[in-house]
Amino acid sequence: MERLKGVLDPEIGRSIVDLNMVRDITVDNGNVTVKIALTVAHCPLAKTLQTDVENAVRKPGDVESVKVETTTMTRRELEELRLRLQTASTASSTQKDGLAVGPGIERLGKRGIRSIIAIISGKGGVGKSFVTSVLASELKKRGYEVGVLDADLTGPSIAKVLGVTGKPYKGAGGGIVPLRTTSGIKVMSINLVLEDPSMPVIWRGPIVNSVIRQLYWDVDWGDLHYLLVDLPPGTSDAPLTVFQSLPLDGVIVVSSPQDLASMIVSKSVNMAKKMNAPILGLVENMSYLKCPSCGDMMKLFGEPRGEKLALSQGVPFLGAVPLDPAIARLSDEGRIEEYSSPIIASIADELRARAAKQADQLAQALPIAWSMEPSS
Amino acid sequence: MERLKGVLDPEIGRSIVDLNMVRDITVDNGNVTVKIALTVAHCPLAKTLQTDVENAVRKPGDVESVKVETTTMTRRELEELRLRLQTASTASSTQKDGLAVGPGIERLGKRGIRSIIAIISGKGGVGKSFVTSVLASELKKRGYEVGVLDADLTGPSIAKVLGVTGKPYKGAGGGIVPLRTTSGIKVMSINLVLEDPSMPVIWRGPIVNSVIRQLYWDVDWGDLHYLLVDLPPGTSDAPLTVFQSLPLDGVIVVSSPQDLASMIVSKSVNMAKKMNAPILGLVENMSYLKCPSCGDMMKLFGEPRGEKLALSQGVPFLGAVPLDPAIARLSDEGRIEEYSSPIIASIADELRARAAKQADQLAQALPIAWSMEPSS
Repeated sequence: MERLKGVLDPEIGRSIVDLNMVRDITVDNGNVTVKIALTVAHCPLAKTLQTDVENAVRKPGDVESVKVETTTMTRRELEELRLRLQTASTASSTQKDGLAVGPGIERLGKRGIRSIIAIISGKGGVGKSFVTSVLASELKKRGYEVGVLDADLTGPSIAKVLGVTGKPYKGAGGGIVPLRTTSGIKVMSINLVLEDPSMPVIWRGPIVNSVIRQLYWDVDWGDLHYLLVDLPPGTSDAPLTVFQSLPLDGVIVVSSPQDLASMIVSKSVNMAKKMNAPILGLVENMSYLKCPSCGDMMKLFGEPRGEKLALSQGVPFLGAVPLDPAIARLSDEGRIEEYSSPIIASIADELRARAAKQADQLAQALPIAWSMEPSS
Repeated sequence: MERLKGVLDPEIGRSIVDLNMVRDITVDNGNVTVKIALTVAHCPLAKTLQTDVENAVRKPGDVESVKVETTTMTRRELEELRLRLQTASTASSTQKDGLAVGPGIERLGKRGIRSIIAIISGKGGVGKSFVTSVLASELKKRGYEVGVLDADLTGPSIAKVLGVTGKPYKGAGGGIVPLRTTSGIKVMSINLVLEDPSMPVIWRGPIVNSVIRQLYWDVDWGDLHYLLVDLPPGTSDAPLTVFQSLPLDGVIVVSSPQDLASMIVSKSVNMAKKMNAPILGLVENMSYLKCPSCGDMMKLFGEPRGEKLALSQGVPFLGAVPLDPAIARLSDEGRIEEYSSPIIASIADELRARAAKQADQLAQALPIAWSMEPSS
């Protein structure tokens, strides 16, 4: 029971012991069985919770095997939990909504979205869309409801790498219904709206800005644990609009090992600082390449310097992702969800841990997973 | 003499035979000596002309060695030539100047600049700045006066890769004097003006647009054979301003082998078409990589598809440039001028050939080389 105290409910962010979810523990010669009461029967986060429990209880030479059994809370237990959560949460929820940040630029609200994370870089071609889409699928694998907003109107990649085609339509509520990937990630990109994806949108700033706001506000994102926003390169209109209009919870910076990239990425980091956006950390992409023939490690774009760059900018370093020819292939085939990156998986875990610390998560609404339909 | 007819003066674009520059031909058993009268004593284009003459005259089994001797035209000969050129040219020069393209957007004039070439791609990180800077140095090697305008205000790379530091100052004529690289290329970039190159310019479109116009118009570029303009990614404000404000003579499109890149590059090509900018062709960058250890050829970003892309867009294919770790290193060290790329060298020759075909070159002014000071 002591070991289980550290296990947090993947959504509520509280100890499962405190939440009264641990119902039974049986110890039989180093073989432990734990019975957990889930909040809802088909909770998509159940698997993540099971793995967390296993990892917490197992200890070589002490506990050799862990079996996790699940049951479901009764309606009465659920009501009790709901009451307890609502009392515990301070009413600080709507604080961020409707915050004016400048003349004529109103910060939009969060509605049913828990965390909005922007992926920025300043420089183009360093792999923002790759990080965004793989991070989205890592979060989805853990059972979270995830959406991706492609804020790069002039160079939209998200729909293609995630293999989404078709036209979004207007739902019953009047909002635009985003399309879903095979794994269920909600996607909205300007390329889904264009008749021909090779046609450019030759728009000046004011139109770009209003369309970005529409892609966020006029889309019926529904309840989401995470909305990832893929930003275009640069520090002009489009990124500025995202920083000013969207209630961002965090920013992930993507860099590449070139000194040149570092300089331009620094501009982006400094922009985020100026805009008071919390920077979650920096990930270096294309750090090295392993030759498929001889296995030799190549530093194509120079010595990895992500850690140094992160240090000099005073932001956490999230890791170095190697260049892999499979990335280009899977992106071109719209199958990037099949790609696994241990570094990006750890960023997903980092986001989970962070969200758990944010007590005001609870203030917003009841857990999203409670209202989610079983995925199949 | 017949073979020399095809040799064009590298600046005037007319046959050196017609220009009365061939003064003597001596043939001695397959060894030929050609005497050429240069327009000015220290003509920086002399070497290019000498090479052209050698290549035209030499034929294995016929002419084994070619010696090119040079002399200088007398003042009277020069006056005669000048008169002949001015009569031949039709007075169509100022046609392009002051062309209004939209309300409030006036197309700027060309002043002393012969050819303005924009390097575009739509997608970031495919190597626009690399192509721009290497093309500039290839043209400079051939003796031309070259300038580079970095129109990427939010991600300026040009000053760094060309190793230019220092602050531009106001010249006697009131214009800003661009800085020069070691080989003499004139450079103007926003990063040369910023106090700290890691600080972002967080500007919305209208400011971006007016600064791009200033970098062109308020800078004293002087007489140039070529001004290369490095564009930012995207199809929004900055590229739009360059297309609308600058009297472009041509556009070079840079792509990378990813299918994803092709889609976004197509947007850029379609933008150039909509803006009636003549597209000189498409160059594919990072087409393949040779492993430095085992020599294996890798297609990092997928199968090269530049030629197919160019064909589908109806633009000439200029060639495929391999990925080379030396590029990142030299760029980071500001020594990209030392890099040689046969493909980009051939693009430089293509530009020469094109310029030679444009008869209205002559109409603008007298050859720039005539007024250039010897470089050392």
